[in-house]
Amino acid sequence: MNRAPESIPQALPHIEALAPYIPGQQPDGEGWVKLNTNENPYPPSPRIAEAIRAELSRLPLYPNPSSGTLREAIADFHGLENSQVLIGNGSDDVLNLLFRSFCDKGKSAGMLEVGYSLYSVLAGIQNTPLIKVACNREMVLDPKSLSACGASVFFLTSPNAPTGVSYSRQQIADILDHYEGLLVVDEAYAAFAQEDAVPLLGNYPNLVITRTFSKSYGLAGLRVGYALADPKVIQLLDRVRDSYNVNRLSQAGALAAFLDTEYYENVINRIEVTREVFREKLKELDWFTYPSQSNYLFTEPCQPGGRVGAEAARDLFEFLQDRKILVRYFAGSSLTESFLRISVGTDEQMDLLLAAIEQWMNRAQPK
Amino acid sequence: MNRAPESIPQALPHIEALAPYIPGQQPDGEGWVKLNTNENPYPPSPRIAEAIRAELSRLPLYPNPSSGTLREAIADFHGLENSQVLIGNGSDDVLNLLFRSFCDKGKSAGMLEVGYSLYSVLAGIQNTPLIKVACNREMVLDPKSLSACGASVFFLTSPNAPTGVSYSRQQIADILDHYEGLLVVDEAYAAFAQEDAVPLLGNYPNLVITRTFSKSYGLAGLRVGYALADPKVIQLLDRVRDSYNVNRLSQAGALAAFLDTEYYENVINRIEVTREVFREKLKELDWFTYPSQSNYLFTEPCQPGGRVGAEAARDLFEFLQDRKILVRYFAGSSLTESFLRISVGTDEQMDLLLAAIEQWMNRAQPK
Repeated sequence: MNRAPESIPQALPHIEALAPYIPGQQPDGEGWVKLNTNENPYPPSPRIAEAIRAELSRLPLYPNPSSGTLREAIADFHGLENSQVLIGNGSDDVLNLLFRSFCDKGKSAGMLEVGYSLYSVLAGIQNTPLIKVACNREMVLDPKSLSACGASVFFLTSPNAPTGVSYSRQQIADILDHYEGLLVVDEAYAAFAQEDAVPLLGNYPNLVITRTFSKSYGLAGLRVGYALADPKVIQLLDRVRDSYNVNRLSQAGALAAFLDTEYYENVINRIEVTREVFREKLKELDWFTYPSQSNYLFTEPCQPGGRVGAEAARDLFEFLQDRKILVRYFAGSSLTESFLRISVGTDEQMDLLLAAIEQWMNRAQPK
Repeated sequence: MNRAPESIPQALPHIEALAPYIPGQQPDGEGWVKLNTNENPYPPSPRIAEAIRAELSRLPLYPNPSSGTLREAIADFHGLENSQVLIGNGSDDVLNLLFRSFCDKGKSAGMLEVGYSLYSVLAGIQNTPLIKVACNREMVLDPKSLSACGASVFFLTSPNAPTGVSYSRQQIADILDHYEGLLVVDEAYAAFAQEDAVPLLGNYPNLVITRTFSKSYGLAGLRVGYALADPKVIQLLDRVRDSYNVNRLSQAGALAAFLDTEYYENVINRIEVTREVFREKLKELDWFTYPSQSNYLFTEPCQPGGRVGAEAARDLFEFLQDRKILVRYFAGSSLTESFLRISVGTDEQMDLLLAAIEQWMNRAQPK
């Protein structure tokens, strides 16, 4: 009676057709200069280890289903109510919940042509059309074309990925003044920016802000993110999320980090200083680099003689990889393919990178 | 131009209509005898704390996106290939992925009338019809009615929740011989059972087995579970899951637990012994209790004079709660409402429970 191994029931057609999300490389060995996934180069606050150790004996017990203490601390900090905060297993979990709650075949999602690449993966999983609003090379935001795009939910990465360009609070208010859908401002990198959209929450019930502990708090390995929104939106997302989406150690570790403001102000400041120093170096090389309000720089490698383009960018990417320096390359779009995204590491890491870039330029020198 | 706070964009209609899943109570204070969510009463292996400590310095880095080392260890243990294993943020994550990949409005899910209550929540989130196959009080499985139920995916909890009754490998093979859909055997409690369905995987490509670290490994607070299935099924689920669904500490902790077989054999053995001793005590009280191959007992409280029923069960539930003893009560079905589900704790916890039950019986004694 046994069936042949071919006879696996069909998954949903759009699932069968999915292309998987390709995350940045996470090499296992030692010795890499890892500047490809915008991780924080500094160690996490020592209070995190303490908090996690204290939680180990409680591992047999389920975690707090609403991440209660962490939720409260975050609400307090932003001057919001607990009912305006939702904690996710990384902000990717929150983004996924937004797709699942508000988008389907007939209710499309929107994003800028240049933005966080996960949105299109999540749209594919949810079988929802994705509207891409065109960008120009200057990355100037056009609030009108965005608010008129017809998407039920628009995902705006600000500071933008991979450019690092930040949109002002006023620009976001300009969108909200005309947009009927849900505007999700993905503020994964807001800690490195001059302003954020949080003060707009009180005026615009269709605004959702997402944040992560992966970047400024250096806790990519712990998977914690959150959403700030109107209580009605949070209530919906709360029903869709897994009851125990954030484990005990993640709740405890993220809380300890969140409360150690002095430590992180210092870390963020160091990263911003390194970023600006490195940006100057790139300027000296005559490379075009977007002004960044994040912990990475999006720069257009230029070979001696002024050659820029996809070939130069890819060549440098591979040259660096051969020397165990990882950066990120985004093919497939004329707005990204001649650039590399470089995460801001320590000063030492940036010096190693710069030395390698100089080698590459000498090698690339036309004879 | 600001809109009134009422104007929140509508979520999908089925999301607006969702009733949230109500997890078992997780009280914050001390002094509770917690026998309500089938947690393990023994401390986790000391190797877990070591493994987690060793991982703390790597928290700034994203975790391994496929939980590689843990996946390998699990595949090895079960005599399978890595491509037959998927790691989830708890087995609830895996169940959710199955719903999302294989079910929709037109492709229904199935479960036994008495089974893990999360399935119906996940069906609601996915907007998929849920077919419930009737159970009788004897909880005898009828493979034919199950395989003919018409569901695209059937979720079979074995050992069953909340009864604790286990279905044999032969019964599961009998279903698979006639079932065209995907059969998910949810083996959250299989470590406490005499046999499991893993050896059937080679013969039936439409079989998926899910497991968790929450129960036998006492790691409910860590959120790790897994699926075993045909590589084609795993590949689909892998595309739908979040790339970084399991964090660094959970991967490291679960691996350390998984490798400490001696410690867990001992823990499981103690729980089984306590379970059988307690079952004897319930028998002496003349209470009907299902034979359990899990870490809980589903028992029908009987007041002196032989009164059983929803009223007696609920009364005992509340009586115990007032004494800071938590057990689980499932209203809403004639098959469950006269029962309580009691997780197997330590011998000391079971003695406290028994003493409280005796108090209740004396109080409930008809005058």
